[in-house]
Amino acid sequence: MKYINVNTPLNKYKIVFEKDFHNILGQIKQLGINYSNIGIISDDNVAPLYSSELVTSIKELNVSTHTFIFPHGESNKNYTTINSIYDFMINNNFDRKSLLIALGGGVVGDMTGFVAATYMRGIDFIQIPTSLLAQVDSSIGGKTGIDFNGYKNIIGAFYQPKLVYVNTATLGTLEKREFASGMAEIIKHALIMDSDYLNSLEKEYADIIELDHNALQNLIANSCEIKSKVVSEDEKEQGLRAILNFGHTIGHAIERLKNFTLTHGECVALGMIASSNISMLLGDLSLEDVKYIEHIIKLYNLPVKVTGLELDTVYQELFHDKKTLHNQINIILLDTLGSCYQNKNLTKKEIQKGLKAILK
Amino acid sequence: MKYINVNTPLNKYKIVFEKDFHNILGQIKQLGINYSNIGIISDDNVAPLYSSELVTSIKELNVSTHTFIFPHGESNKNYTTINSIYDFMINNNFDRKSLLIALGGGVVGDMTGFVAATYMRGIDFIQIPTSLLAQVDSSIGGKTGIDFNGYKNIIGAFYQPKLVYVNTATLGTLEKREFASGMAEIIKHALIMDSDYLNSLEKEYADIIELDHNALQNLIANSCEIKSKVVSEDEKEQGLRAILNFGHTIGHAIERLKNFTLTHGECVALGMIASSNISMLLGDLSLEDVKYIEHIIKLYNLPVKVTGLELDTVYQELFHDKKTLHNQINIILLDTLGSCYQNKNLTKKEIQKGLKAILK
Repeated sequence: MKYINVNTPLNKYKIVFEKDFHNILGQIKQLGINYSNIGIISDDNVAPLYSSELVTSIKELNVSTHTFIFPHGESNKNYTTINSIYDFMINNNFDRKSLLIALGGGVVGDMTGFVAATYMRGIDFIQIPTSLLAQVDSSIGGKTGIDFNGYKNIIGAFYQPKLVYVNTATLGTLEKREFASGMAEIIKHALIMDSDYLNSLEKEYADIIELDHNALQNLIANSCEIKSKVVSEDEKEQGLRAILNFGHTIGHAIERLKNFTLTHGECVALGMIASSNISMLLGDLSLEDVKYIEHIIKLYNLPVKVTGLELDTVYQELFHDKKTLHNQINIILLDTLGSCYQNKNLTKKEIQKGLKAILK
Repeated sequence: MKYINVNTPLNKYKIVFEKDFHNILGQIKQLGINYSNIGIISDDNVAPLYSSELVTSIKELNVSTHTFIFPHGESNKNYTTINSIYDFMINNNFDRKSLLIALGGGVVGDMTGFVAATYMRGIDFIQIPTSLLAQVDSSIGGKTGIDFNGYKNIIGAFYQPKLVYVNTATLGTLEKREFASGMAEIIKHALIMDSDYLNSLEKEYADIIELDHNALQNLIANSCEIKSKVVSEDEKEQGLRAILNFGHTIGHAIERLKNFTLTHGECVALGMIASSNISMLLGDLSLEDVKYIEHIIKLYNLPVKVTGLELDTVYQELFHDKKTLHNQINIILLDTLGSCYQNKNLTKKEIQKGLKAILK
């Protein structure tokens, strides 16, 4: 069994990689806590596929288990759903020794984490991310939250799970475009931290795309290791963690301007191409480097150009990013393939040249 | 200037004691953070008395300052108010470098803390508690939260302030019954930890009741020191912190059964008398000890008896406490004046004998 230890200042937990749900029982037992109640939180896409398998796998714990299912999608990531989950917990007598299990993608994980962080001032929870994006990104790092009045994740908390359980078999039911969305974060991890990993994305392409368990396990574990390393050193996003925003400041602007019709990964891919072009302009990347990045991105069915957006509109939208403080645009750039830095001093012209590269 | 340093595993902050708002400016400057925006959160009882004085005191910071005022009272400690505060912050462009200031009693402090804990996954906040109860209890320890569907504080987070600023002059406008309510927590601190402090409550009575600044400052500082010491060792309520529940398991039951027509302190006083009677039954306290406790409690206008409640009803209600796990009633008892321990093995008969002592 493959696993990674994550250590944050106040928490330690494991990310384990499996090809089914069998070992979840043993993993929960290993936590050594006598839970009074278990709540499985899932959505109507994922629950029909995996909830009964999960319930069967943990039956032997002999803990009263209840399942809450809400309609899938970002539009339900709000207080209405959160309040229904609180109600569900109160009605089923959940106390401080209860355990929540998030079974689903990023929306399920973010909301379950926020409920766990705030119910009776914090109870335990486990992440079982079922999308590639959640497996390599949102389930790690303790960011939980909901949207509010159109602002993504503006309400939330930093709160770590007790365990992240990755079952690679769940990727078998994931839509192709969602798989590609997760690949964008994986490519990001490789670009900012590990050029060997980047090369392996090309070499292992056939196995990855065919969902071979070993290839997926290595792929996801590599990404989790990079993300958890960054997050462990900077749990509350004061410094180093900013590098995980590579491709995101520009990506988020495109995501909003396209009204979320593109996936998160598609927007991040575009943001990474724009940022790489700025790096080329500054003399840090060569034209070959940028072409290679484009090649990897296209290989995994992600876009390198976007239509229907004006340069000025995209530039102005950068100022509406949650992380834009004191009107200073803060962009992560590559200084070479597999290494990055934060640049707060880009001129409007430099940023616009990068944006031009992705506008059709 | 008198102050106390509080150290929790992840946070350090000061509790300062003043007789006006002058030094708040210097205290905020000492935090050394270049805040982008300040939000003062208060209620319609406290804001008319102190908000303009506070705004004037921090004017020199030259930071854009907005005030949010909501209707006072526990009935507004809910999501509706919380969502209005989020709206207020979004509309005034509050970002991650914003500061919130809670100006008011426990409801204001608990809600402002919860908003600070959850807005953009956590921003800085300062407590300016204006009631005695908030000064010696709710503003210290990082418990934040709101009520939900009739359950008190069931939604919340552990989140520490950057500073607690106690202005004893604000007690001049506090209702007598509210002052007494705060005294109950002070008597509790003395009973569980410090018999000298207990004796001083008798000796300093005249000065305390006349709101002499030095007497109040010593009184509040003593209580803050006891509470912050306990809280520092057990930030998330896993062990030691339980002793702060002395009088509370029974007190909360009475509070609910009397539909919150008694103040929190009145209920805690009753809970302390019931618990002290159990200690006498177990042979830990003498009749003189219990009489002395009753004397101090009466001295500060708190009740030692309650009417209109049935023994069985109160006993059953103990099982609905948030802290009652696995149906095990957990009561803090004194082993002598100024010292306490947790007792999980009381019989129904022992608990009922304690309750009988307070039922008229």
